[in-house]
Amino acid sequence: MRNELMEMLEERKDEMIEIRRHLHEHPELSFKEERTAAYIADFYKGKNVEAETNVGNGYGIIVTLKGQLPGKTIGLRADFDALPITEETAFSFKSSNEGVMHACGHDAHTAYMLILADCLIQLRDNIKGTIKIIHQHAEEQPPGGARSIIDSGKLGELEAIFGIHVLPMAKAGTVGYHSGYSFNGRTYFKLRIQASGGHGSSPHKANDAIVAGSYFVTAVQTIISRRVDPLATGVVTIGSFDGKGSFNVIKDSIELEGDIRYSNDETQAVIDKEFHRIVGGVEELFGVTCELTYTPDYPPLYNDPELTAFVAETLEGVKDRNITEVREFPRMAPSDDFAYYLEKIPGSYFFIGCTPKGVTDPYFNHHPKFDIDEDAILIAAKSMGHVACSYLDMD
Amino acid sequence: MRNELMEMLEERKDEMIEIRRHLHEHPELSFKEERTAAYIADFYKGKNVEAETNVGNGYGIIVTLKGQLPGKTIGLRADFDALPITEETAFSFKSSNEGVMHACGHDAHTAYMLILADCLIQLRDNIKGTIKIIHQHAEEQPPGGARSIIDSGKLGELEAIFGIHVLPMAKAGTVGYHSGYSFNGRTYFKLRIQASGGHGSSPHKANDAIVAGSYFVTAVQTIISRRVDPLATGVVTIGSFDGKGSFNVIKDSIELEGDIRYSNDETQAVIDKEFHRIVGGVEELFGVTCELTYTPDYPPLYNDPELTAFVAETLEGVKDRNITEVREFPRMAPSDDFAYYLEKIPGSYFFIGCTPKGVTDPYFNHHPKFDIDEDAILIAAKSMGHVACSYLDMD
Amino acid sequence: MRNELMEMLEERKDEMIEIRRHLHEHPELSFKEERTAAYIADFYKGKNVEAETNVGNGYGIIVTLKGQLPGKTIGLRADFDALPITEETAFSFKSSNEGVMHACGHDAHTAYMLILADCLIQLRDNIKGTIKIIHQHAEEQPPGGARSIIDSGKLGELEAIFGIHVLPMAKAGTVGYHSGYSFNGRTYFKLRIQASGGHGSSPHKANDAIVAGSYFVTAVQTIISRRVDPLATGVVTIGSFDGKGSFNVIKDSIELEGDIRYSNDETQAVIDKEFHRIVGGVEELFGVTCELTYTPDYPPLYNDPELTAFVAETLEGVKDRNITEVREFPRMAPSDDFAYYLEKIPGSYFFIGCTPKGVTDPYFNHHPKFDIDEDAILIAAKSMGHVACSYLDMD
Amino acid sequence: MRNELMEMLEERKDEMIEIRRHLHEHPELSFKEERTAAYIADFYKGKNVEAETNVGNGYGIIVTLKGQLPGKTIGLRADFDALPITEETAFSFKSSNEGVMHACGHDAHTAYMLILADCLIQLRDNIKGTIKIIHQHAEEQPPGGARSIIDSGKLGELEAIFGIHVLPMAKAGTVGYHSGYSFNGRTYFKLRIQASGGHGSSPHKANDAIVAGSYFVTAVQTIISRRVDPLATGVVTIGSFDGKGSFNVIKDSIELEGDIRYSNDETQAVIDKEFHRIVGGVEELFGVTCELTYTPDYPPLYNDPELTAFVAETLEGVKDRNITEVREFPRMAPSDDFAYYLEKIPGSYFFIGCTPKGVTDPYFNHHPKFDIDEDAILIAAKSMGHVACSYLDMD
Repeated sequence: MRNELMEMLEERKDEMIEIRRHLHEHPELSFKEERTAAYIADFYKGKNVEAETNVGNGYGIIVTLKGQLPGKTIGLRADFDALPITEETAFSFKSSNEGVMHACGHDAHTAYMLILADCLIQLRDNIKGTIKIIHQHAEEQPPGGARSIIDSGKLGELEAIFGIHVLPMAKAGTVGYHSGYSFNGRTYFKLRIQASGGHGSSPHKANDAIVAGSYFVTAVQTIISRRVDPLATGVVTIGSFDGKGSFNVIKDSIELEGDIRYSNDETQAVIDKEFHRIVGGVEELFGVTCELTYTPDYPPLYNDPELTAFVAETLEGVKDRNITEVREFPRMAPSDDFAYYLEKIPGSYFFIGCTPKGVTDPYFNHHPKFDIDEDAILIAAKSMGHVACSYLDMD
Repeated sequence: MRNELMEMLEERKDEMIEIRRHLHEHPELSFKEERTAAYIADFYKGKNVEAETNVGNGYGIIVTLKGQLPGKTIGLRADFDALPITEETAFSFKSSNEGVMHACGHDAHTAYMLILADCLIQLRDNIKGTIKIIHQHAEEQPPGGARSIIDSGKLGELEAIFGIHVLPMAKAGTVGYHSGYSFNGRTYFKLRIQASGGHGSSPHKANDAIVAGSYFVTAVQTIISRRVDPLATGVVTIGSFDGKGSFNVIKDSIELEGDIRYSNDETQAVIDKEFHRIVGGVEELFGVTCELTYTPDYPPLYNDPELTAFVAETLEGVKDRNITEVREFPRMAPSDDFAYYLEKIPGSYFFIGCTPKGVTDPYFNHHPKFDIDEDAILIAAKSMGHVACSYLDMD
Repeated sequence: MRNELMEMLEERKDEMIEIRRHLHEHPELSFKEERTAAYIADFYKGKNVEAETNVGNGYGIIVTLKGQLPGKTIGLRADFDALPITEETAFSFKSSNEGVMHACGHDAHTAYMLILADCLIQLRDNIKGTIKIIHQHAEEQPPGGARSIIDSGKLGELEAIFGIHVLPMAKAGTVGYHSGYSFNGRTYFKLRIQASGGHGSSPHKANDAIVAGSYFVTAVQTIISRRVDPLATGVVTIGSFDGKGSFNVIKDSIELEGDIRYSNDETQAVIDKEFHRIVGGVEELFGVTCELTYTPDYPPLYNDPELTAFVAETLEGVKDRNITEVREFPRMAPSDDFAYYLEKIPGSYFFIGCTPKGVTDPYFNHHPKFDIDEDAILIAAKSMGHVACSYLDMD
Repeated sequence: MRNELMEMLEERKDEMIEIRRHLHEHPELSFKEERTAAYIADFYKGKNVEAETNVGNGYGIIVTLKGQLPGKTIGLRADFDALPITEETAFSFKSSNEGVMHACGHDAHTAYMLILADCLIQLRDNIKGTIKIIHQHAEEQPPGGARSIIDSGKLGELEAIFGIHVLPMAKAGTVGYHSGYSFNGRTYFKLRIQASGGHGSSPHKANDAIVAGSYFVTAVQTIISRRVDPLATGVVTIGSFDGKGSFNVIKDSIELEGDIRYSNDETQAVIDKEFHRIVGGVEELFGVTCELTYTPDYPPLYNDPELTAFVAETLEGVKDRNITEVREFPRMAPSDDFAYYLEKIPGSYFFIGCTPKGVTDPYFNHHPKFDIDEDAILIAAKSMGHVACSYLDMD
């Protein structure tokens, strides 16, 4: 049956590309993917599978594919939202939705998944167990769609979950994996420091918010330099220091905003604690009042080591002609709400190389000129097909 | 002749108040005092004195009053511009020029000077030497009018110069003096720090302008805390830290603006040197590029000790019934372009108490509710009259 | 009687110099002035005055000279301790007590006061009121002798107190005065920051005391740069940062020591509050424990404006041929425990120029080559004689 | 022949332990291992191999074992120096050299290598190619022995090199490997900041070295927080801030010492550049002079990915009853001069678990109570035997 699946996928490669291009031309922002979700739901019409729509806090879709043979239940996830980026390509299928772009490859994710699902539906008689296909909305915009889908209870009990992301850091043919913590978690913060204003010539009658804010920025550096395990990843970026005022008036308040990244839960806990401590310290140090909004977004993404090894061994073992290399990828900086599934369900998020042919220095995800080698779509479908079937076939 | 002058002034007290109220009702901003200057010029018409108008970089007026007896030449200065402040008083003569206000007492300065001048003109036969009355425009707005009047060459050689400022820190009847450095000098700066932007998760690929700017702010504190003579005054205020951006994007540049104050030339030199040094240091420290605009405005105002002692002794000696107290005032924070005259000509800038009657906690100069005791106008006229006559009478 | 006193003083000029040289050769450290005190007490033996010895917390001496005429009671103070400095002069009367030196002129203070006292004793019949001569120990070493003498209650009620200090910033013949705050107050502090040590490669397992201490130092700069009135004087010097350790071990604790100066009580209060706040802020900021010793020494010295004016006017009025100039001196950096008397009793501490003849760039007080023009001793005696007699003569 | 080797090693387990205990009892410091080297050299006497002694900058020994069959040449390295640590164990074979201890397991390294070498010598007829056994001195003390052995030219051309370190982070039976950068590189620095001293009350006449040093410490934090790739490891520890002085004297100079760590060459380059930049920046910022000693010690240790995979696969494949687990270890903080070999020769440094039996929280290397499970010595010998033979047997 595996060979049959692979042949079917190869035959439908052009169809995958067609779907991807259609989606690429009609991108929709997170939580606003109404037409994309309708397109997907439409695809499953008449295919004799259960497709629940509007799952979670948006347009999430869960397709439940029950094999005819008894077995385990697994989830396969593909996300379908786009980004608020103005596309700068010359594609014939360039975004028709001005200011919105599939610059992260979710169009490819959805394209491969639809065709893979269709093939698996056709092979249902030979499938052991159940496959829940999760077409997920709103990955790009915290709080994301993943947690709400989990919280909806509609996934039921999954024994494993798998997902794929296309990455242009390797050429099509390469499949990457990383065991353990793989993507960073992140937190958003906004800090308002309230001091008291006054005339520039009389600092002793005021309390200078710019001075307090500047010392805050310098103190925050020690979180990363001295508090975080040097073997882990931590980043605290203050992206905004809003202290615009008049040259000769002491500012009464400023507002900082920033972005925090961490590679694992322990590092998240350390940064949380130290960041709050420093905010309290600056209040004491300068006699100011701080108002802090501190919003953890996605957690660090942790790939189950056993299932990641399973993915790697499976794909090395199949000797598929399209999968020319299976190798470990390094730990990476981005965040993805696939991390929420992995908090609850053992699984692995793995990677499909997609450097456009002939390009040595590709544009990365989220770039207005982001591009993929469309061969990667078939490779994604085949890789996920192998992994899903091998997992369900295991005793 | 002195007694005659004082009697004449006392008789024209109401007229002084009337002029002051007229000017108060029709304030004009620095460099835009067209009508005020016309009013002044008009006052001198037919009085048989030479009045040069449009002196310097604006509406400056120099009135040359030649006594009939041979003697020295001195200058007396009164400024006449107003401030961009919306008046918040209930005066019948409240500003009719919305958003502009005589909130610094220049209306009183001009009022006393006109009547004093007129009386002196009438007493010309008994005056030794020459009095140059300087009706100065644009004191409130750097670069000010003073320097341009000096540079015009139209003052000729003056042996001494005197000026008066009304201050509500003492009641009418008190005349204040301060020897040596009396008012602060000030400098405006704007500093643009150019680094390079990037994604918040990848600080190593960017160069964070907010971090560089914050360390700059902390380093600048040492100029005042460690470099300036503790017995002198220095202030460096950074009133604006314009670093607004997106929370997850590393800022590529920021812009600071600020105000520097110093009590004497040596302190100015120290701050200049250290400020520039720190700008260079931050460039090196963080590998950023700094673009600095550094504009000294008015220098510290230095009252000639001998002439200040002369003022104090003269006013103590005359036993004028309106001048109830002559005392030393402390060194003060403001700046005044009278300092430029004093760089070239020995002189003294002294102070006329003007706390409104019955008020214990008066509004200070530049406040939208600034007010004076109008008795101070006569006292100003008498004080300046005594000083000018005594100086010219000396051998 | 005044003329008689002055003639007597002039006649005993050589004797004053002799006493000064004797004391100079036999200096004793603060609180250890046993022989100096004995020398002074001995001087008064048989002179029919009451001399109390061992007053206060050391070798203080109060000599009570009652005039035969009724009147007020005043105090005159001269200090007599020396400094832990190794003298570097070639004087015939160079210190014979190795490592100890009269490098601050207290030898001259005591010399003039002894002869002045002797003369006044002889003129007792003509003196109105009572003069308490305070030969004070331990001015150089906090807590000093002054406060303990006051607290002893042995001064009784004084209506005024005067003291003199020789200063080489003017030549002999010049007497200086300064009204209001004149000398700075000072505070000693020691701050121990306790964090926790660890291996240099694992900062996350330690808490770095050097980092906490360094941020403390940078934060402290803001006290002077932003909290103290720019017209006042404040200094916070951290003279010692004891954080020596091994290059690859994170320090668990450091110790800072320093010196704080302030020109007036308000500034002292501001620095106290802000310093303690910053210590608390650093505890919070870095999760360290701070142990602070904070010991105010001498307060700012405040000369009563009326009595200072009285001193100036008296000395200007007497037309003494030895007193060639009476002028205002600037506010100065040193501290003196004469400040304690002035907290309780109106008075004035004034200054006697003593630049050695022919010297343009004299060594200052506390320098191992400190020297005086010995003419200043007579001038001190005459000046204090004038001031005391004039004060007692006033109704 | 492989089975024969393993049987021989098993039979000589007690002998290995005996050698290890002998060495443990007689530890010698780096560059002073005279007796240890003599012991090793003695071991090879009469064994018909070439043993060069005194190789490199100390007591290095290279034993050349030529197999009878043609083949490749490889190096196997074991280090033999001890540490300046006072042993705190109760072993019968506790260090008899007071203050010196084999607290890093080099005794075990040498013990297994001697017996392995002896067995291989006996099996020489069946060995393809040549094995260079490197008994290396002075690993613990930069500049170390490794580089000098390479520079001696006496290794000739090696096709691969392997080394082993015992680590108590896993129990005996576990072999660990890590591909790519595995151990950190490190650099020592000493920074003297020369400013100029002065009296604590007059900061404007001095230049405060403690202030400059403190700002340096805060600025240095940004190297790690903002300049180093968050996915890499960087540490800058300032272990010593020697600024002890008198509380009221401004320090004229201070001295900092510290330790820098980095996980890869790129990070080393970044830290080098930024550290020097900040030193230059502080010179400019405060007008001080910096004298910097900056001494890179061992570079980051880079395990060749192919040979590391070879080691892992070999040891997984042999199904040796003593090797119960072969797994990836994380990247680690220490430094080792094995890194120098790996800069020139592809190879892999791998790890032998040695947690003492029954211990759950073992003392780590360099602890005065460091201990090993002596079973690990045999496992080391077998592991290295497998790796060496497999490598030489490959075509």
